[in-house]
Amino acid sequence: MAMAAAAAASSQHLGLALITSLACLRGRAGAITSAASKLSYILSESAGYILREPICRPRSLSASATTQESVRGPSQAGPPSTDGGVIDTSPPRGTRDFPPEDMRLRTWLFNNFREVSSLFGFEEIDFPVLESEELYIRKAGEEITQQLYNFEDKGGRRVTLRPELTPSLARLVLQKGKSASLPLKWFAIGQCWRYERMTRGRRREHYQWNMDIIGIPGVEAEAELLSAIVAFFSKLGITSSDVGIKISNRKVLQEVLGRSVIPESSFAAVCVIVDKIEKIPRAEVEKELTALGLPVEAVDTILRALTLRSLDDLEELLGSDNEAVVELKQLFELARGYGFEDWLQFDASVVRGLAYYTGTVFEAFDRTGTLRAICGGGRYDKLLSTFGGVDTPACGFGFGDAVIVELLKEKKLLPELNHEVDDIVMPLEEELRPQAAIVAARLRTQGRRVDVVMGNKKMKWAFKHAERLQAKRMVILGSTEWTKGSVRVKDLSSREEKDLPLEEL
Amino acid sequence: MAMAAAAAASSQHLGLALITSLACLRGRAGAITSAASKLSYILSESAGYILREPICRPRSLSASATTQESVRGPSQAGPPSTDGGVIDTSPPRGTRDFPPEDMRLRTWLFNNFREVSSLFGFEEIDFPVLESEELYIRKAGEEITQQLYNFEDKGGRRVTLRPELTPSLARLVLQKGKSASLPLKWFAIGQCWRYERMTRGRRREHYQWNMDIIGIPGVEAEAELLSAIVAFFSKLGITSSDVGIKISNRKVLQEVLGRSVIPESSFAAVCVIVDKIEKIPRAEVEKELTALGLPVEAVDTILRALTLRSLDDLEELLGSDNEAVVELKQLFELARGYGFEDWLQFDASVVRGLAYYTGTVFEAFDRTGTLRAICGGGRYDKLLSTFGGVDTPACGFGFGDAVIVELLKEKKLLPELNHEVDDIVMPLEEELRPQAAIVAARLRTQGRRVDVVMGNKKMKWAFKHAERLQAKRMVILGSTEWTKGSVRVKDLSSREEKDLPLEEL
Repeated sequence: MAMAAAAAASSQHLGLALITSLACLRGRAGAITSAASKLSYILSESAGYILREPICRPRSLSASATTQESVRGPSQAGPPSTDGGVIDTSPPRGTRDFPPEDMRLRTWLFNNFREVSSLFGFEEIDFPVLESEELYIRKAGEEITQQLYNFEDKGGRRVTLRPELTPSLARLVLQKGKSASLPLKWFAIGQCWRYERMTRGRRREHYQWNMDIIGIPGVEAEAELLSAIVAFFSKLGITSSDVGIKISNRKVLQEVLGRSVIPESSFAAVCVIVDKIEKIPRAEVEKELTALGLPVEAVDTILRALTLRSLDDLEELLGSDNEAVVELKQLFELARGYGFEDWLQFDASVVRGLAYYTGTVFEAFDRTGTLRAICGGGRYDKLLSTFGGVDTPACGFGFGDAVIVELLKEKKLLPELNHEVDDIVMPLEEELRPQAAIVAARLRTQGRRVDVVMGNKKMKWAFKHAERLQAKRMVILGSTEWTKGSVRVKDLSSREEKDLPLEEL
Repeated sequence: MAMAAAAAASSQHLGLALITSLACLRGRAGAITSAASKLSYILSESAGYILREPICRPRSLSASATTQESVRGPSQAGPPSTDGGVIDTSPPRGTRDFPPEDMRLRTWLFNNFREVSSLFGFEEIDFPVLESEELYIRKAGEEITQQLYNFEDKGGRRVTLRPELTPSLARLVLQKGKSASLPLKWFAIGQCWRYERMTRGRRREHYQWNMDIIGIPGVEAEAELLSAIVAFFSKLGITSSDVGIKISNRKVLQEVLGRSVIPESSFAAVCVIVDKIEKIPRAEVEKELTALGLPVEAVDTILRALTLRSLDDLEELLGSDNEAVVELKQLFELARGYGFEDWLQFDASVVRGLAYYTGTVFEAFDRTGTLRAICGGGRYDKLLSTFGGVDTPACGFGFGDAVIVELLKEKKLLPELNHEVDDIVMPLEEELRPQAAIVAARLRTQGRRVDVVMGNKKMKWAFKHAERLQAKRMVILGSTEWTKGSVRVKDLSSREEKDLPLEEL
C-alpha cells in the first residue's frame, strides 16, 4: 500500500536523523537510566531546590523504584533495530514521565493539597510555566537564581522556566492592582524548574504547592499557613512525632547585624550564606561572610546567635520589645489555639535561602533526621516593592512533591491507589459490538465507569483483565441472551451470575 | 531599621537593572495589554494550532473579557514610579495567568474532562512539558513542527516545549515495552506550546485533553473515543444541533493517490497540504501539490474526491471492498449503537493537518459555522514504528481549552462558579485571636471551609466580605459570649442569629 511504504520511508528518514543527532544523547541515556534505578526514595544523595522548599530532594513521584525500573522498555532491550533504531525513550534528563501508577499518586497528593487549601478558604491560581527572566534577577547569590532554566526566545526575549512560584504571584498581585480586595488568600500547584549540571542525579523539575496571604502584616497570617501545613500532615496520617516545624524570624539576624558596622545592603546576601550553615563547613560560611565585608567579630556574633534554641534565651539577647521576640511569642500563642504547638520549635538557625524573606521563616523537618526539609516559607513584605509596587505585607510557603512522598513511604502511609472501573462489557462475538455499545452507553449514563473489551479478545483474557482492574461486574453479551433482550451479569466479588433484561441493568 | 534599608537598597538595585534590561520589553508591553483587552471570545481573528486541534483559536480561558480588562493594574496606571519603575506585570507574550475566576473555569473544565475519561475506563498520564526536539522532527511541512518553542539547553541538547502530547505518549508506550498490557486506554490534560511571530494576537500556549487507545486495530476504538467526546458535550449541555462531527478516513486519499503515479513518500505531505483547502485559496493548494511532483490530473482527482459528502458516493467511487468504505460503515453502525449517529457526518474534505494519521480522521465543529474546529483526532498506526518501535495500532484525539469555552459562552452554557466558603470566623477584638483559632480549627475538623478574618477588620467589612464570598454563616467571637463558652452564629441566608456553646458548633 502507498501509505505503508510512505510511512516506512519517513521512518527511515527520521531514523537516520536520530542516529546522527541523538548519538551523544543516547550515550548519556544509559547513565540516566541506571542512575534513576539507583535513586529510590530511601537511597538518596541528591540535594534540592534552594527556594521555598530549599533542601528537598526532588526525585520521582513513583510509589516504588521497582516500578520505574520495570517500565524501561525497548531502549534497554539491546541494540537498535536495523531500520533506523529506537529513539531515546527516556524523558529529558532530570525530568519525569507520569505513567498511570505514578499519576494516581500525584493526583492523590494534589487533591489533598487542594482539599486543605479549600478548608482554609484559599482560592486556586496559576501562572505560565515560562516567565520573563527578569522576575528572578536578584543579586544575593541564591542558588535558585544561579540555576535558571533560561534561554532567549526567537523574539530575543530572555525567558525562563519558572524556578519558583512566588515572583509570578507578586507579578499577578501588581497586575490586579487596586481591583484586588486585600487580603488575598491564594494557592497554586505548579511545576518548577532549575538547570544544573547533573553531577549527582538531581532532578530538574518538581511540583510545588504554594499558599500565600497578601495584605496581612500580623502573624495571624503565618499562623493560618502553619495550621494548613499541619492539617495537611494530619490528613495524611503524619503526626507531630514524625514531623516538626522549626521557626525563626529574619528580624533576629537583622537586629544582630544592626549592632555591627555592616552595610545594610548585605542583609539578603548574609541570609543566603547563613542558610548554608548545616550544608557546608562552618569555616566556609565564615569565609563567605568575611568576603561580604563583615568584620570577624560580627561573623562570630551572627554564628553564635544562630545557635539559640529557646525563646527565653532570645528574649534575653534581644530584649522583650524586640519585634522578632514579640512576633514569635504571638505565633506560639496562636499555635496553642490552633492546637499545633507541639509541632513548633524555635530554632534561630532557620534562615531560609531565599533573599526576599523579611520576617517569620520556617521549615518542616522529619524528626528522624534522614530527610531534608519537607516544606518551607516565611514573610516577604518587600517583594512587591522590589518589583516597583508599594510595600505590601505577604507571607507564604512552598511544599514540594518529592520529600513528602519519601516520608510517606518510610512511614508506610502511602495509599494503595488502583485504577477504578465498575463494569467490564464483553461481547462474545464481533457481530454484537453495536449491542455492546448500547449496553456501555446505558451504564455510563448511570454514572458507572465502563471498560468495553475491544479487539476480539477471549473470555479468559477478559476475566484476567477484570481481575487486574478490580472491576465490580462483568457484563457479557451472547447472541442467545440478546435475542431475549438480556445480558449475562457476573458479580466479580460474590461470583454470582444471572441474566438481566437490558432495562433492568 | 537595617532590614528596611537593605531591602530598599536591593530594591533600587533591581529597579535599575530592570530599567536597563526591560526597556524594550516594556515598550512592547503596552501593545500586548491593549491587544489582550481587545481579544474577547466573540471578536476573534486569531488562528490556532495545527495539531490534533488544528484550527482552534487559543485565547484566554477567562469567562469574560471584562474580567481580563479589569485586572490590569499598575502597568497601565501611568508612568512607572520614581524609585525604579513597575515591572511588566503581564505574563510573557502569548501566555496567560489564571487568577481565581479563570482558574475556577479551568478546574471545572478539566474536572469534566477527567470525569468523562473515567466513565470510559481511561487512566490519566502525563509527561514533561519540556521534551527532546527530535520527537517532533517530521518532514511533511506541518505547521506544528515549524513552530516549535525550541532552544538549546546549557548542556547543548536541543529541547522544546511540547507542541502536542501524542509523540510523548508514543515515547512512553515504547519505554513501557512488553511490560505494557495492550490495549492501553490513557488520557492526559497538558499544556502545549508553539512559537510564532505574534502578528495576529495568537496565543502561544493552550491546554489540551487527549484520549488515546493503543493496541486496537478495529474501529471500535474510534467509536469509543467519539462516544467519549459526545458524552463530554452532552454533560455540558451541548446537543447535536449545536455541534457535529465530520469524519473521514485517510485511506480515501491513499486509494485515490494509489491510482496516480505519485511517489508514495509524498503521502503525508499531500495530506498536510490538502488539509488547508478551506483555509487558503484552491489555486494555492493546487500549486503546492504540483510542487510536490503531482501531475495536474492527479491534483484534480484528489480535489474532486474531497468534495464527497455521502458514503454511498464514496462506495461508488472506491468500491464496497475498499478499506475506507468498510471502516466508515462499521463506524456509523457502532455510532447507532452508542446513540450518537446524529452527531456524525461523512465529509471527505476532513484530512487533518498532522502527518502521522493513517486511517480514521475526524473533527468536531460548531454548526453555526462561526468557530473553528473544537477538537480533532484519528488513527495513527505507524507513529510508533517511525520512532523505531514495532507497528502498533493506535488512535486518539486532542481537545483544546479555547474553542469549547467560546462555544459555551455563545450558547450561554458557562457555569457560574464562585469561591466557596462555609463559615467566616470573626474575632471582635485582637485579643480573641487565639480563641478564633480554636473555633476555626474545630470547624475545619468537621470539614467546613473556614475563612478567618485577619488584620483587625471592622464588622462592616466582615459582612461585606461574607456577602462577596457567599458564605453560609458568620461566627462572631465577643469577649462576653466567650467567657460563657459561647460564640455568636449568624445564618447568612435566613439572617437568624443565636449564641451557640462551642461544643455545639
